[in-house]
Amino acid sequence: MEKLKNDLFLRACKRQPVERTPIWIMRQAGRYLPEYQAVRAKADFLTMCKTPELAAEVTIQPVDIIGVDAAIIFSDILVIPEAMGMQLEMHEGKGPVFYNPIRSESDAKQLKKVVPEKELEYVLDAVRLTKKELDGRVPLIGFSGSPWTLLTYMVEGRGSKNFSEVKKLIYNNSKLAHRLLNDLSDVIADYLSAKIEAGCNAVQIFDTWGGILSQKDFLEFSLPYVQKIISQIKRKDEPVIFFAKGVHHNLEKMVDTGADVLGLDWTMNLGEVRKRVGDRVALQGNLDPTVLYADRNYIKQEVISVLQSFGEGNGHIFNLGHGVLPDVDPENVKALVRFVKEESKIFHCS
Amino acid sequence: MEKLKNDLFLRACKRQPVERTPIWIMRQAGRYLPEYQAVRAKADFLTMCKTPELAAEVTIQPVDIIGVDAAIIFSDILVIPEAMGMQLEMHEGKGPVFYNPIRSESDAKQLKKVVPEKELEYVLDAVRLTKKELDGRVPLIGFSGSPWTLLTYMVEGRGSKNFSEVKKLIYNNSKLAHRLLNDLSDVIADYLSAKIEAGCNAVQIFDTWGGILSQKDFLEFSLPYVQKIISQIKRKDEPVIFFAKGVHHNLEKMVDTGADVLGLDWTMNLGEVRKRVGDRVALQGNLDPTVLYADRNYIKQEVISVLQSFGEGNGHIFNLGHGVLPDVDPENVKALVRFVKEESKIFHCS
Repeated sequence: MEKLKNDLFLRACKRQPVERTPIWIMRQAGRYLPEYQAVRAKADFLTMCKTPELAAEVTIQPVDIIGVDAAIIFSDILVIPEAMGMQLEMHEGKGPVFYNPIRSESDAKQLKKVVPEKELEYVLDAVRLTKKELDGRVPLIGFSGSPWTLLTYMVEGRGSKNFSEVKKLIYNNSKLAHRLLNDLSDVIADYLSAKIEAGCNAVQIFDTWGGILSQKDFLEFSLPYVQKIISQIKRKDEPVIFFAKGVHHNLEKMVDTGADVLGLDWTMNLGEVRKRVGDRVALQGNLDPTVLYADRNYIKQEVISVLQSFGEGNGHIFNLGHGVLPDVDPENVKALVRFVKEESKIFHCS
Repeated sequence: MEKLKNDLFLRACKRQPVERTPIWIMRQAGRYLPEYQAVRAKADFLTMCKTPELAAEVTIQPVDIIGVDAAIIFSDILVIPEAMGMQLEMHEGKGPVFYNPIRSESDAKQLKKVVPEKELEYVLDAVRLTKKELDGRVPLIGFSGSPWTLLTYMVEGRGSKNFSEVKKLIYNNSKLAHRLLNDLSDVIADYLSAKIEAGCNAVQIFDTWGGILSQKDFLEFSLPYVQKIISQIKRKDEPVIFFAKGVHHNLEKMVDTGADVLGLDWTMNLGEVRKRVGDRVALQGNLDPTVLYADRNYIKQEVISVLQSFGEGNGHIFNLGHGVLPDVDPENVKALVRFVKEESKIFHCS
């Protein structure tokens, strides 16, 4: 049994007592860090994902430099569609592009079945190497996109304003959409199970585009597949975090998926959500990422404001409400972590 | 006193009895219509806004062709910043661009005070001409962006993913942000008053970017200015519609602004919102605009679903949850209007 030097994050996920609120930051291994940029200068984004030494290096950077309470394996949600045979180009800043999006039965026939231990072995190698190098300092998080979010990218092919193509698919060929979502769910469950097997202490499912759906469509095309994944993941007591950006409704049903933690974006009221579902799940979030553009004093006040919103007691993991932005000052990110560590103690004194 | 042949929309805004649910469609005078494209082929977008004959023509098109129960004057929310001296370029499809965004005190000094009857007289002329040509067939709606939404465009200068620049402004120079928001509120109140004076039967305030703010920031930087505008608009009984896209919280406070109608995007639950605030305001919305990509039968089912969500009784104006998309089939838009007219009668029989 692994002994972690700092298990605050895992305890918070399970709503167990902690001395202070743990913090990690979505996209913490990223462009805002000069140390990341130095690695990135030597290799393109996908090469970094596929080279365990590089992935491990940037995964551990924020633990050393920023002082976060968990590492999250450096990777991208689109490695799954890429492993299915889709040609992926990453344009940092502009976003990823699939030049041959999936929009018909015949497009879908081109997709290959993925066995994570084969096609995505490089991620598992990166997990194993990172675990070794972390040497129990903090837990390691693995992640995947949700089936709906991966389908959105696969069908749109690139960034979208109105998400017309994926909406056309679900309204005009819902059978194909459901088949693809179902297949993706199986791959994702296998992938997250393999990550846990390789050493991840928790996994997060990102439903980045759940918020473009009506409530009815979210309940048809996104949520059931997340539930299916969570029921299929092979785990001992590794927590599952479900982060559905922009989804402000159906909180109770999100809890019913079996997730241990709900991630909240910065438009949500942490305290109100806790009142509704805080007896069943831990909550993660939810500082507006743009607050890191402000001065340190303002950041500190906003940290206190988020801590107060959750209130006293257990079951809170501090995070931003979305990924850290590439042009923030790393010193502000360090200050954020310091403020959370200092200011959260009094919320756990009883 | 003007006698309208069809005043269903106005009665619904006031929660008065109607025989059926009225419908109009955001961006109904727009690119999906070949008749609009024919006009657009002869003049660029801003020229259309500034030529009352062209603006009136495309404003009336959806009344004749689609059969909507209200017209909305063809214009753009950015005519106000343009009148303040900002150089505006419209790239249809790509969105508008201000080449000299406002980010500092000295940038702000360049902005001119606007008297709508002077700098925006062309809009008022378009309203007067449209009223004459409509000849009382349906009511005419005027509109403006909210102060927050206009400020966002003025500061960002172009479409944005993270809205970093306007967030930097509010966090690092909130005094300047508040001064600009206050000045914009005064102009917008004057502008909407002038539109009503020129003949508009109702006005809508679009807070397109209210949803990028945390709940706390929305209550500081957007909502109070909408409230200020509504309190300042000179009107007899012309209703005010407040549409804050992506703002799922603070519904009660949105009602407290004095708005007669809340517009809802397609992620909201119309029935639940009605339960919470339906005794104080009418509700407008909220079919997912992408449903118009589906076949007619699906559209019909979704129309019924929206009508059922609101339920029986008064105070519902049917609309999409956001603007109609440029690549939908106009026949589907016509079918939508027909379905609402046919299917809504039974919700008003008692």
